[in-house]
Amino acid sequence: MTEKKIAIISTGGTIEKTYCELEGVMQNEVSNLDVMLAQLELEGIEVVRVPLMNKDSLDMTARDHDLIARTAGTMAEAYDGVVIVHGTDRLAVTGERCVEAVAELDAPIVLTGAMRPFALKITDALQNLVEALLAVQLCEPGVYVAMHNRVLRFPGVVKDRQHGRFVRAGGDG
Amino acid sequence: MTEKKIAIISTGGTIEKTYCELEGVMQNEVSNLDVMLAQLELEGIEVVRVPLMNKDSLDMTARDHDLIARTAGTMAEAYDGVVIVHGTDRLAVTGERCVEAVAELDAPIVLTGAMRPFALKITDALQNLVEALLAVQLCEPGVYVAMHNRVLRFPGVVKDRQHGRFVRAGGDG
Amino acid sequence: MTEKKIAIISTGGTIEKTYCELEGVMQNEVSNLDVMLAQLELEGIEVVRVPLMNKDSLDMTARDHDLIARTAGTMAEAYDGVVIVHGTDRLAVTGERCVEAVAELDAPIVLTGAMRPFALKITDALQNLVEALLAVQLCEPGVYVAMHNRVLRFPGVVKDRQHGRFVRAGGDG
Amino acid sequence: MTEKKIAIISTGGTIEKTYCELEGVMQNEVSNLDVMLAQLELEGIEVVRVPLMNKDSLDMTARDHDLIARTAGTMAEAYDGVVIVHGTDRLAVTGERCVEAVAELDAPIVLTGAMRPFALKITDALQNLVEALLAVQLCEPGVYVAMHNRVLRFPGVVKDRQHGRFVRAGGDG
Repeated sequence: MTEKKIAIISTGGTIEKTYCELEGVMQNEVSNLDVMLAQLELEGIEVVRVPLMNKDSLDMTARDHDLIARTAGTMAEAYDGVVIVHGTDRLAVTGERCVEAVAELDAPIVLTGAMRPFALKITDALQNLVEALLAVQLCEPGVYVAMHNRVLRFPGVVKDRQHGRFVRAGGDG
Repeated sequence: MTEKKIAIISTGGTIEKTYCELEGVMQNEVSNLDVMLAQLELEGIEVVRVPLMNKDSLDMTARDHDLIARTAGTMAEAYDGVVIVHGTDRLAVTGERCVEAVAELDAPIVLTGAMRPFALKITDALQNLVEALLAVQLCEPGVYVAMHNRVLRFPGVVKDRQHGRFVRAGGDG
Repeated sequence: MTEKKIAIISTGGTIEKTYCELEGVMQNEVSNLDVMLAQLELEGIEVVRVPLMNKDSLDMTARDHDLIARTAGTMAEAYDGVVIVHGTDRLAVTGERCVEAVAELDAPIVLTGAMRPFALKITDALQNLVEALLAVQLCEPGVYVAMHNRVLRFPGVVKDRQHGRFVRAGGDG
Repeated sequence: MTEKKIAIISTGGTIEKTYCELEGVMQNEVSNLDVMLAQLELEGIEVVRVPLMNKDSLDMTARDHDLIARTAGTMAEAYDGVVIVHGTDRLAVTGERCVEAVAELDAPIVLTGAMRPFALKITDALQNLVEALLAVQLCEPGVYVAMHNRVLRFPGVVKDRQHGRFVRAGGDG
């Protein structure tokens, strides 16, 4: 069986936050994406990790968004799919940037993140990662967000901060 | 946002097995599918539970496979997608039966199960359920198995018992 | 079998912190002590919950420490043992106050807390609670801290902030 | 701080059972006691592992019970305490054997086990192990079972099979 090659670009965000005992806070310090991946059964795909940065997306600069979008675009030429793990607050900014940055995509780019860190007992991190890894295999080339069992295509996706989820801009869903 | 209506037919299998303290064995007695669903964030879909049976699939009769296939076919007329939770040992039998039983499908039917019960700390149950719930939204009408991050379309899918996974018959993958 | 009656006074601290999705921080807002207790098998004891406050112990005033000590002293007259769930930063202050406040104890008072909130996957919360509940049955009347499989008796116990644990003052152990 | 040296003799039982995917059953094959210990914060004690056997206690012979009792007795001379991890069905047989085998104990021997394997999400394994490790430090020399937050001293302890717990023989508790 030919394996699909999937690149995962990690940029930080809530999903990767861990607990600092000294400060008593959740922070982006070490990546736990490898621990997450180790808990999944992944058959038929080969996952390549691309650790780009580890930031709360509220701290991202225009240059950060740009760097992520260009890296994703380049990876989409070499891989069968690209997953971007991202903070949800500014995920849509990077999503739109990906659409602008890349004229014609060879493979899908799927962004995902989480409302609750993987380090917590109750978390949406693993679910969202599973969804991104499957959506990137099933969707046609394009830029998407996969989270909470819903896949939406950019452009025109925004975060609904009140409910902690992504929706189509304009409210038609 | 219009919600998709997804029917989940539960039939038992390893994924739903729970531990009996008295006997010290894993068995299909009570369904834990509702507990699994409660641990997921499901947006944009409305899930309807159809508890059909709770059996180890090795105990299924030809009539059981038939009943499941016909129920799935009927549900596919009324819902936007149908997920079947099933024991993996005879999952492919039901999958093929679904293909035979239904002339023309209006919606996708996605079968899934698990190699390790949800009741265990280390389990593929939740991952597989998430994949089935997403695949049923992304795939065109047809009969599929979604498990371990891979979606395969019936007919022509068999269980690779040695590795505990599903593959295309004939070995081309 | 006669049941021992144990009072659990909850005051907050890291052990009870939960995650706030909106702010992305761990905070003392709702108590999760009942969830913790529900995960334990407790035979031969009857646990009575006394929710006193829900504070990071760094925010405790002299009056708070006093209130906790006096409440514990009173409870020790009516119950077979008293457990105090407390933030570790100022736990020793309350411990010493308990010794001063109560001339003669009828039952043991055992303080405990955690370095990592119960809400996290990796946490010492449940272990420490189990230890406090057992120590309060096995120790003679007195004031103790039980944490990380070690029981130390007040007075003369301090927090070793560097290692996140309690030790005897003076360093002799 | 002087460390106490605790020997843990593992003999198998439900607590150590793991899931066999091929057979779909829980069995005593590999020990997971090291994984359990790695999840605990143990300060002030040094734990030495003595893997003796890995059996369902229903399969133990008189010779097995004898071997465990004599090993525990010997260890109690060299260590500050001995914990025996054991199947609950015949735990009381080994407990009584320990009392008979050892004329005068230098250190406490604490037996423990579990009604639900550590491999399960919902399990009493870690709680019971924590209790045994604490009881062995707090109790005077003697033979005990620690489980479900209760410590009972041999001789005269039996398993109450109906409730899955240990009680004093004769029913006085």
